[in-house]
Amino acid sequence: MPSPIRDILKPRSVAIIGASKDPAKRGYRAIQALFRQGFEGMIIPINPKESEILGLPCYSSLAAVPHAIDTALVCTPARAAPGVIGECGEKGVKGAVLLAGGFGESGVEGAELEARTIEVAKRHGVRLIGPNTNGIFDAHTGLNLVGWPGIYKGGIGVLSQSGNVAMSLMTASIRNGQAGFTTFVGVGNESDISFAEYLRYFGEDAETRSVIVYAEGFEDGAAFVEAAREVTARKPVVLYKAGRTQQGEGAARSHSGSLAGDYAVGKGVMRQAGIVVVERSDEMFPVAEALSHHAGKTALRVGILSEGGGVISQAVDALAERGLTMPRLEPESEAALKATTPNASQLYNPVDYGGATDPHPRYLGPCTRAILSDPNIDAMLSVGYVGGYQCRNDTDEIREAENAAAREMAAISQETGKPIIVQNHYAEWNTEAMRILRDAGIVVVRSIEVAAACLAGIEEYHRARQRVSAPPPPPAATEEARAIIAAARAEGRSALLEPEALRLLAASGIAVPPFAVLREGEAPPAALTEVPVAIKIVSRDILHKSDVGGVRLNLSGAPAITEGAAAMRAAVAARQPDARLEGVLVTPMAPRGVEIILGVTTDPQYGKVMLFGLGGVFVEVLKDVTFRRLPLGRGDAEAMLDEIKGSAILDGVRGGAGVDRDAILALMLQLSGLALAHPGISEIDLNPVIAGPAGATIADARILLA
Amino acid sequence: MPSPIRDILKPRSVAIIGASKDPAKRGYRAIQALFRQGFEGMIIPINPKESEILGLPCYSSLAAVPHAIDTALVCTPARAAPGVIGECGEKGVKGAVLLAGGFGESGVEGAELEARTIEVAKRHGVRLIGPNTNGIFDAHTGLNLVGWPGIYKGGIGVLSQSGNVAMSLMTASIRNGQAGFTTFVGVGNESDISFAEYLRYFGEDAETRSVIVYAEGFEDGAAFVEAAREVTARKPVVLYKAGRTQQGEGAARSHSGSLAGDYAVGKGVMRQAGIVVVERSDEMFPVAEALSHHAGKTALRVGILSEGGGVISQAVDALAERGLTMPRLEPESEAALKATTPNASQLYNPVDYGGATDPHPRYLGPCTRAILSDPNIDAMLSVGYVGGYQCRNDTDEIREAENAAAREMAAISQETGKPIIVQNHYAEWNTEAMRILRDAGIVVVRSIEVAAACLAGIEEYHRARQRVSAPPPPPAATEEARAIIAAARAEGRSALLEPEALRLLAASGIAVPPFAVLREGEAPPAALTEVPVAIKIVSRDILHKSDVGGVRLNLSGAPAITEGAAAMRAAVAARQPDARLEGVLVTPMAPRGVEIILGVTTDPQYGKVMLFGLGGVFVEVLKDVTFRRLPLGRGDAEAMLDEIKGSAILDGVRGGAGVDRDAILALMLQLSGLALAHPGISEIDLNPVIAGPAGATIADARILLA
Repeated sequence: MPSPIRDILKPRSVAIIGASKDPAKRGYRAIQALFRQGFEGMIIPINPKESEILGLPCYSSLAAVPHAIDTALVCTPARAAPGVIGECGEKGVKGAVLLAGGFGESGVEGAELEARTIEVAKRHGVRLIGPNTNGIFDAHTGLNLVGWPGIYKGGIGVLSQSGNVAMSLMTASIRNGQAGFTTFVGVGNESDISFAEYLRYFGEDAETRSVIVYAEGFEDGAAFVEAAREVTARKPVVLYKAGRTQQGEGAARSHSGSLAGDYAVGKGVMRQAGIVVVERSDEMFPVAEALSHHAGKTALRVGILSEGGGVISQAVDALAERGLTMPRLEPESEAALKATTPNASQLYNPVDYGGATDPHPRYLGPCTRAILSDPNIDAMLSVGYVGGYQCRNDTDEIREAENAAAREMAAISQETGKPIIVQNHYAEWNTEAMRILRDAGIVVVRSIEVAAACLAGIEEYHRARQRVSAPPPPPAATEEARAIIAAARAEGRSALLEPEALRLLAASGIAVPPFAVLREGEAPPAALTEVPVAIKIVSRDILHKSDVGGVRLNLSGAPAITEGAAAMRAAVAARQPDARLEGVLVTPMAPRGVEIILGVTTDPQYGKVMLFGLGGVFVEVLKDVTFRRLPLGRGDAEAMLDEIKGSAILDGVRGGAGVDRDAILALMLQLSGLALAHPGISEIDLNPVIAGPAGATIADARILLA
Repeated sequence: MPSPIRDILKPRSVAIIGASKDPAKRGYRAIQALFRQGFEGMIIPINPKESEILGLPCYSSLAAVPHAIDTALVCTPARAAPGVIGECGEKGVKGAVLLAGGFGESGVEGAELEARTIEVAKRHGVRLIGPNTNGIFDAHTGLNLVGWPGIYKGGIGVLSQSGNVAMSLMTASIRNGQAGFTTFVGVGNESDISFAEYLRYFGEDAETRSVIVYAEGFEDGAAFVEAAREVTARKPVVLYKAGRTQQGEGAARSHSGSLAGDYAVGKGVMRQAGIVVVERSDEMFPVAEALSHHAGKTALRVGILSEGGGVISQAVDALAERGLTMPRLEPESEAALKATTPNASQLYNPVDYGGATDPHPRYLGPCTRAILSDPNIDAMLSVGYVGGYQCRNDTDEIREAENAAAREMAAISQETGKPIIVQNHYAEWNTEAMRILRDAGIVVVRSIEVAAACLAGIEEYHRARQRVSAPPPPPAATEEARAIIAAARAEGRSALLEPEALRLLAASGIAVPPFAVLREGEAPPAALTEVPVAIKIVSRDILHKSDVGGVRLNLSGAPAITEGAAAMRAAVAARQPDARLEGVLVTPMAPRGVEIILGVTTDPQYGKVMLFGLGGVFVEVLKDVTFRRLPLGRGDAEAMLDEIKGSAILDGVRGGAGVDRDAILALMLQLSGLALAHPGISEIDLNPVIAGPAGATIADARILLA
C-alpha cells in the first residue's frame, strides 16, 4: 500500500490559499515557482478579491472550486489556520502545507492555536505539513512550493527541520552539477505528520535512492528510529543532527521548540538503526550522494590513484583517520601499472602515475583497471586532476582523451561493482568529463577530507547492514527478582540496596561475586575470610558511602573483617546519626583488570538504553561512552565495544592480554534482557565491572526503580 | 637588507633555458604564461636551434645574451643540470629554477647528480630553486613560471612542497572570487634554498600579509621553526603538514624524499613558534585569508547573526567544538536589536533576525552594529544568506539594499576593529555584495565548519602572540651533576641508575623525594621507617625491574623494609643470576594524585624537546601528549598543560581539588634548564610525577646519556 502522504507530496492539483497579484507576496511567488518548475498538475489560486492571477482563474473559496484538490498551500497568517483547515476538510483536501510561524514554537498562545488547528485537521482527516515550515518540493512532478530555483531531478530525498539548511545543500549541489533530488519536506513543527512517517514515505518512494535527514530534535525519537530501522534495510539514510554541544542544544531548542535530546545517546541509537551519522554539515550531501550510488558496497580497502604526491599524503591521512586501509596491490596489479605507465613515480598503492613526463589522461583507464581489478581493493579514490585536465589544458586532444578516460573509468567501476570517488582541484567547473563520471555514479568533490568521508560513509552503511542485530527475546522475569523489587517498593524505596541489587542480578542468571551482609556483631562466613575483602555500609539513607566512611578496602581474615565492620558502623553512626544501618556488605576485593562501566538508563526519547564505556577518567573526563537502545543485539554490543575511543585498551596494553570480550558481550545482553523483563527498573549501574583475560567481575551494582 | 632571493622571485629578466617552438613543451608554455600574466621584465629564450620564439629573439646560449639575467627557468633534463648551472654562474645569473625530477628523490644516482649540481651552484654563487619543483609565481610582477592561469594579486604568500596542492588552493580561491596572492614557491627538493630562507623572504615582503605553508617534511626542521618564530612575530603563518598518519608518512616520504618526522612533535614545536597549524586541507586557504586581514585580533567571544535557526545550531556546534564562546549580550545591545527588528525570532546571542515577516537586508547593518558594539563580543559570525539575498531574489531593490548593507557591515567591522566572517549558502556566486565584503577584509565561505575554523585561527594566532615565550637562560651545570654523568660515562654506561638520576636532579635544584640505597644487610635510615615505602632493585644490568621481581610496594617499618630488601635481592638473583646488584632503593610511597608524565627527549629534527602528558592509559592508549622545543618558556609550558585532551583532569574531577599547576610549570622549566645545561643528557623520563593540590612529586626518574 502506498504511503498515505504520497498524494500530498505528488499532487494532481494544488490550491494556493492566499494567492496574490503582488509579486512580493508568497501567494504570488508560489504560483510563479510552480510555473517555472513545470508543475504537471493543476494550480488553483484562492482569493475572494481576485478573479484571475497570472492567467489562472482565481476562486473566492475552496468551496467554489469545481475540481478535486490534493494539496493546499496555506499562505495566510497563523490565526486563520483553524478556519482554513476546516474549509480544506469540507472540500476533501488531502493535505495542507502551513507556512506560517506563530504556533507552538512561539509560546503558550501559539501552542493553543496549534492544538486547535490539529483538532480540526484530525476531525476532517486533513493531513498537516508544518506549521512553521518553508514548504515542500518534488522535483519529479515539478511541485515547487518553496521557491528555490533550478533544482533538478535525481535520487536524493531531503527531510529537514530547517529550510535554510536544505536550501543550502540543494542549491550548492545544483550549482556544482552534482546529483539531483526527489522530494524535499520541511517538517516544521511536526504537529501532525512526523519525521517517522515522512521517512517511511522516502523508504517506499522508488525514485529516492538515499535520504538526507537534518534534525535538531525529534518529537518522537523512538518512532523515528523504528522507521529508520525499516528504511535503512532498503536504502541509506544520512543524518546530521544539530545541537551536539550544550550551547548548540540551546540554539536548536529555541529554533523549533523541540527537544534536542542528549546527542551521545541519539548518535548511538541512530547508528544502531543503520543510519549513517555525519558530524560536519559539509559532508551531508556528498555522503548521501555517494550512498545513492553505492549502497551496500564495502569501501574498506582503498586504492589511491593520483597525479602527484602532495595530494596522496593528504588522502592517506584523511582515509586513515576514518579507519579505512590502503593495502598492497598484488604483484600482477603492480606489473599491469608498470606496463601502462613505466615512468610513473609510484607503481604501488598509493599509485602516483605522474612522473618524469607530463601525465596524460590516456593512462587513467588502464591504471583504474589495474587498481580496481585487484582482489585486495574494494574502492578507488582518485585525487588530483581527473575531470579537470580540460581546465588546465583546454585543447581538443586533451578534452577528448579525458572524456574517453572518464567513460572508461565509469565502465570499470560498473563492471567491477566497486565505487570510485574522485577528488578534483576543479570540482566546481563541472566539465564534460565530470558529467560523464557523475552520470555513472562517480561522485566528484573538491575536498580530500569530504572524499574520504564519502568512502567512510559507504563502508559505515555496509557494516550497519552486515550487523546481526536481531536481539534475543527478553527472558521472563523471575519470581525472586519480582519479589525483591516489590519489597523495596513496599517500603517506598526507589533504589535497591546493594545486596538487593546483587541478589536481583543473581536471580536473573547474572554471575555476581560471593557476598554476605553482616548484622551487628555477626562474623563473616568462612568463604569470605580466605581472601582480601572490601566492606561497605548498607543503608537506605546513605547515598554516597565513601563520604561518610562507609567503605573499607583490603581486609583479610575474620577478626579484621569483624572489627572493621564494627568500626565502620561506629564511624558512620557518628557522621550520620539518623541513618538506618541494615548491615555491612562483605565482598572479595575485585581482581585486577580493565575497569569498565556498564549500565542501563531510561532516555526520555528512546526509552531504555544501554551504556558502555571504560571506567574512571574515561567516563568522567573524556565522556568516552556509547549508547544503544534496548533490546540489544549481539551486533549492537560488538559495535559498542569497537566504538569507544579507548577501544584499544580492551585488546591489552603494554603487551598485556586483552580482556574477555565474550564475557562483556554476554553480560550486556543479559542486562538488556533483565531491564526489559522488569519494566519497573529504570536504571542499572555496574560501575565498575572489572574485565580480565577470562571473565568480567561486577565490582559495584546499583539499581533504581521507576 | 632585503632578502638575497628577492631578485630571483621578482626578476627584471628571465631566461628560459630549453625554450621551444613546440606548444606542447614547457619551454614554449612558460613563455606563453609570462605573456598572459603580463610579466613586467624581459623574457629571454635560450635554444641553440632557434633564432626567434613567439616573436622574441632567441639566443644560442646564456653567454650570447647581451643583457643581465636575474632568473633562469631550466626546462632541460636533469642530467644537463651541472652544465647549465655552470653556464648560469659564468653569466652571473642570480638564481635558477630547476624543474626536472630525477635528483635526490629518485635514488642514489640522482642524489649524486644533485650533489654535483649544488657544488657547481655554490662555486658560482647561483641560488637554486628545486630541483623537482613545478616552479615559482609572483602575482605582483607577473612572473608566472608555473603556467596556472588567472591568478591575481593579493596578500597571501604560498610556500609548498607540492605544486598540485598549491595549484588546487590558488585556483579555487580565484574561482570563488576570494583573496589573491603575492608569491608562490614550489620548494621541491630544498637542495639549496630551504623552507626557512623562503619563509624569511615572505616575512620581509611588505605585500605578503599571511603565509600558507604546505609541508611533508623539512630538510632542517629546526631552522624552519627558528625562521617561523621571527616571521610570526610580524605576520601569520598557516601550516598544513601532510604525513600525520603512519601510512601518510610513507606516502610523503616516497614523494619528496624528505623526513616526514613525528607529527606530534612537529605540531607542538610549530605551535610554539607561533604557527597556526590546520589539520584539514580545506581550511588552509580560508584561515590564511582570514588572518591576512585580522592578524593579532582576538576572536574568542563570538556573536552570531543569522536568518533562521538551523544554521545557528550548526554554527554553535562548530564554534564550541573549537573552543570559542558565545556570551550573552548586554541588555542595551539586546534592546538595540529589538528596536531594529522587533519581530525577529531571537533577540539575544545567537541572534536570529528572521521571523514572522520576510527578513530584509536593511536590518543587517543595525544588527551588526548592535552585536559588534557589545563589549562582550570580539568577533561576529554571520550565517545564512548575507551576500546571497540577491541570488535568492534578484530585484534591483534587494540588490541595492544588500550592497548597502554589505558596505555598512564593512564599515562597522573597520570602525570597531572586530573581525566578521560570513558563511553563505551562495558563497561561490561571488555577488557584488560579497565583493564589497571581501574587499573590506570580510571572508565569505560556504562551510560553517570552515567559517568557525577561520575564527579559531584568528584566536590561535592572537594567543600565540600574547604568550610570554622568552625562556629563562639555562642555569649553569653544577659540578656534582657533571661528576655523576662523568662517573657513569667512565663505566661505559649510557643510563644513570635511578639513585644517580635522583642525585643529579637534586644537584640541579629539583626537589626529589627522600631516598636511600641499602647495601646488602643495611637497615633503612630512620626517616624512611616512619612512612610506607617502595623498594626497587638498583642494577646496571636490569632494564625492566618489575619483570624480575625488582619492585615491592607499601612496606612499613625497618624490619619489613630490611626483610623485603633481602627477599627482593634473592628473588632477582634467582631470576637474573648474572645481574650486578648495586643495592636497593628505598623511597616513600608516592602520595595520591594525578599521574603525569614529564620528559625530555632528543628529536632528530628539533633537538631536545619536552614532553608533557597524563600518565597511564592516557599516554599509552590515547597518546595524549604534547611537545615543545627547549628552551621552554613559561608560556610554552602553560600551553602544553592546556593542550592535552585530558586537560580537565588537572582542574580536578568529581569536585576534587585541581592540581598545583605552578608546581608542574616550575618543574618543567627546571627540567628544560637541566637538559640544556648538560648536553650529554639525551633523555629524561619522569614517569610518573604525582601532581597534587600542593606540589608535584617525582615518583620515578630515568636519565639517559647521549
